[in-house]
Amino acid sequence: MRDWKTQRTAREDRLAAGARFARGKTVAVDDLTAFLETVLRPGDRVCLEGDNQKQADVLAMALADIDPSVIHDLHMVQSGVVLPEHLDIFDKGIARRLDYSYSGPQSARIARMLFGGKIELGAVHTYLELFARYFVDLTPQVALIAAVSADHEGNLYTGPNTEDTPTVVEATSFKGGLVIAQVAEVVDKLPRVDIPGDQVHFVVEAKKPFYVEPLFTRDPGAITETQILTAMMAIKGIYAPYGVKRLNHGIGFSTAAIELLLPTYGEKLGLKGKICTHWALNPHPTLIPAIEAGWVEQIHCFGSEVGMDDYLAARSDIYFTGADGSLRSNRALCQTAGLYACDMFIGSTLQIDLAGHSSTVTTDRIAGFGGAPNMGSDPRGRRHPSEPWLKAGAEADPGTPAGLRRGRKLVVQIGETFGDANVPLFVEQLDALALAQKLDLDLAPVMIYGDDVSHIVTEEGIANLLLCRDKDEREQAIRGVAGYTEIGRGRDRRMVERLRERKVIQRPEDLGIDPLEADRSMLAARSIKDLALASGGLYRPPSKFRNW
Amino acid sequence: MRDWKTQRTAREDRLAAGARFARGKTVAVDDLTAFLETVLRPGDRVCLEGDNQKQADVLAMALADIDPSVIHDLHMVQSGVVLPEHLDIFDKGIARRLDYSYSGPQSARIARMLFGGKIELGAVHTYLELFARYFVDLTPQVALIAAVSADHEGNLYTGPNTEDTPTVVEATSFKGGLVIAQVAEVVDKLPRVDIPGDQVHFVVEAKKPFYVEPLFTRDPGAITETQILTAMMAIKGIYAPYGVKRLNHGIGFSTAAIELLLPTYGEKLGLKGKICTHWALNPHPTLIPAIEAGWVEQIHCFGSEVGMDDYLAARSDIYFTGADGSLRSNRALCQTAGLYACDMFIGSTLQIDLAGHSSTVTTDRIAGFGGAPNMGSDPRGRRHPSEPWLKAGAEADPGTPAGLRRGRKLVVQIGETFGDANVPLFVEQLDALALAQKLDLDLAPVMIYGDDVSHIVTEEGIANLLLCRDKDEREQAIRGVAGYTEIGRGRDRRMVERLRERKVIQRPEDLGIDPLEADRSMLAARSIKDLALASGGLYRPPSKFRNW
Repeated sequence: MRDWKTQRTAREDRLAAGARFARGKTVAVDDLTAFLETVLRPGDRVCLEGDNQKQADVLAMALADIDPSVIHDLHMVQSGVVLPEHLDIFDKGIARRLDYSYSGPQSARIARMLFGGKIELGAVHTYLELFARYFVDLTPQVALIAAVSADHEGNLYTGPNTEDTPTVVEATSFKGGLVIAQVAEVVDKLPRVDIPGDQVHFVVEAKKPFYVEPLFTRDPGAITETQILTAMMAIKGIYAPYGVKRLNHGIGFSTAAIELLLPTYGEKLGLKGKICTHWALNPHPTLIPAIEAGWVEQIHCFGSEVGMDDYLAARSDIYFTGADGSLRSNRALCQTAGLYACDMFIGSTLQIDLAGHSSTVTTDRIAGFGGAPNMGSDPRGRRHPSEPWLKAGAEADPGTPAGLRRGRKLVVQIGETFGDANVPLFVEQLDALALAQKLDLDLAPVMIYGDDVSHIVTEEGIANLLLCRDKDEREQAIRGVAGYTEIGRGRDRRMVERLRERKVIQRPEDLGIDPLEADRSMLAARSIKDLALASGGLYRPPSKFRNW
Repeated sequence: MRDWKTQRTAREDRLAAGARFARGKTVAVDDLTAFLETVLRPGDRVCLEGDNQKQADVLAMALADIDPSVIHDLHMVQSGVVLPEHLDIFDKGIARRLDYSYSGPQSARIARMLFGGKIELGAVHTYLELFARYFVDLTPQVALIAAVSADHEGNLYTGPNTEDTPTVVEATSFKGGLVIAQVAEVVDKLPRVDIPGDQVHFVVEAKKPFYVEPLFTRDPGAITETQILTAMMAIKGIYAPYGVKRLNHGIGFSTAAIELLLPTYGEKLGLKGKICTHWALNPHPTLIPAIEAGWVEQIHCFGSEVGMDDYLAARSDIYFTGADGSLRSNRALCQTAGLYACDMFIGSTLQIDLAGHSSTVTTDRIAGFGGAPNMGSDPRGRRHPSEPWLKAGAEADPGTPAGLRRGRKLVVQIGETFGDANVPLFVEQLDALALAQKLDLDLAPVMIYGDDVSHIVTEEGIANLLLCRDKDEREQAIRGVAGYTEIGRGRDRRMVERLRERKVIQRPEDLGIDPLEADRSMLAARSIKDLALASGGLYRPPSKFRNW
């Protein structure tokens, strides 16, 4: 007779071993490393909660202190590789294999370690597909997660940074796995319950809050006039004609500029209520002026943002908030919202090739992509119709009869033809391809594929790839907005002019925009201080963004 | 100064009004209609929990008893339209607008009511996109949900049918909405907490369990020899060469036949451990023999299935189960698993046209599609690589260099060339198109689009659409497996032969399958009783499936 409860039995063994260090469910932080050595097993599949914002930092440090002769060959399945400890465990031989999504601050070191063979790479995922695999073939055996507080039954309060926690806990706890949470404090009564205690096995009282990275804060003071120009073009040339109400903005100064132009330039164009009403979006401080001016109806968030918590709580008509009054975020559901309920994604990238493929990976940095590839892809299959989606579909595919013609999600790449340090945005070949060869990857780390991209916006113009009828037209449409980069200079001028006549390419003047108008005075806030003022003092920027 | 807490204030008004009928959070079932008239408002967006399985039936009945002069013009946003009351509320004028996903048992009546203008249709969604819109532009103001039991704080135990509940509650409760749950009983201590009490506002003690439909039970006794033949072809011609380990099966007898052939035919082919190990799947009773024979490693479920609960609890190494020992399902997460973590979807349909588009909608039945269009679509964009996905991608797109070439999800349509009542599976034009014209829909209710379909399996053969290089080849590949239907008889015989030489079409004999082998004796279970026996008595079939 086969034993069908081996996972439950294994968990009971871990629980019994761990209980030696626990009072009730609570483990003292001083015992943490010894405790982890007791409850972990070599080869375990472990999710160490590192979202792109909040970090189970105390658990990460303790994990990195483990004796690799006791616990080794862990298979880490986590969305963010953000803290040094996330890679230290590979250097020390505690972990061996990695499946992940995002690695912003560690992108250079992770590249070196991959080249050096220190990490056995599973795959670089999008958030939503990594979450998906948590329920199919990458289910964690142990989850090391972070919350604000716990009660004595192990119920958890995540506060505004709920993020990945419910998804990770659900996959782990309901499949015989062990859930260990770090919290700042154990209290008698929680402000609200984000995770029921019967899904949580041990609680570590860290006596300090988990670490959070202010990832979505962009200082309006750093927005350039070129970014303002591209933002004006995007609003007038894309948001307005398609009537984009439901959308997601990527991270970056170009989209921050759009957010700050809504109450000024957008107002002047009479677009209030007609665009940008419903969002799947992190709590961008640069959206505060538009919210205050009444542009926004509703925002669902992936996570929170440092300094925004009081503002979010005070704007519960806009944001999702809990019984305690504070934000409730949820990355898995917000990714789904971005995938299927939004009509547009707009974001920036580091490289775009002649087919419109783009990537933020370069040969010495493997940043991972987080949510952008889900937001920035057209999921095809069946979808509910909406006006922007139908209009975009009709442009892309005028030949198919309406009933059978699918719409298209608007996927917009926005950027300056030359980026930081004068590096060209447009390239013959993505660095991602060279990297794939070097690491012998099955699939180059492309972030957004060219056939999903609908528009590219630069200071030279908007290329509408939906209107391109073949590969050559696409290439020339891209070259036609690539400015003085080598790609731009390689254009076929006559073909580009024909594309402009067909409005495949639109220049600022075609849109009635004078580039000289693009002035910082148009921004609804010109500094972080302006944002704080616009929020009525509710937004409290982190100190590194304060200069007053 | 704008008031930014209107939703919270409105909820407090509803709570105060409802409190007159409540002791703590508990409302007596006799007061239910009067209570609903008090807490609802005309024009409310309401999610009445009707999943494709469990039903908030007591709440549905009470809602249908409301006085339409008090509460009217409700906008129903619910995944399943299953009970008569779900449509009665439109007949009575209580509700006006509908956004939904699935309407199996009500498909004929919903069609009549749409034609008659009794229902203002928003859109027919897939589950995942309706859930997505709950967080963007279809957020419920009131959720009427179902659970097994509640405690005095309003914590809920859903039992194995967790299904949509966490998603609906999260969208409603965290956006200022009101959550009302029907439960069979209020208890002092729950077996486990599926929904924290601070997300639940009122509890109705219905004194009986919610209604559940045994939707995924297929009697092996009704499986035909033709279905066995197509199942053999699918296993040998698709599952084996692609090495499909992670998959979803649609509802129907053809896929039930595949499940029942794994421990017999699949075993003979030496495929154990090589295919069908990880599933996103409802608890199909027909998978019991394969599970018992050790074929399956893990299954995550959308919902539960009537009669399967004890079996699921006793197989916790396979299924996701909670602290109480019973199944934990979750439709939103399982749909995501099917979308991004599975390499194959295989299912049946009612009509397939010459482009490979398919639909279960006919001119007098609008069934909705539930999850099939998410499962049965290739989401494109970026995905992690897997062997089946890469192999399928290489077949579809041999020209693109490997690093930039995306894989393809396997999306397989399986069926007999003539279905029930001798109706042909293959048609010139889908009835869905005529329906779209009749109802003036922007988008015909196509279930799975042709460009997502990789294979079509009938008793005549397998058409591999990945290998087709143009529209004509696709059409002839489809005609080439369409048997004696009019579509099949209209084939270009020489072209079909050429396609067969290229293995675009494979006949049973090309696969080394003798149609005479396809015998019911090959099924690992030939009756519902066999399934119950195979489960060691743990599967308890509903009485309508018992004949012993």
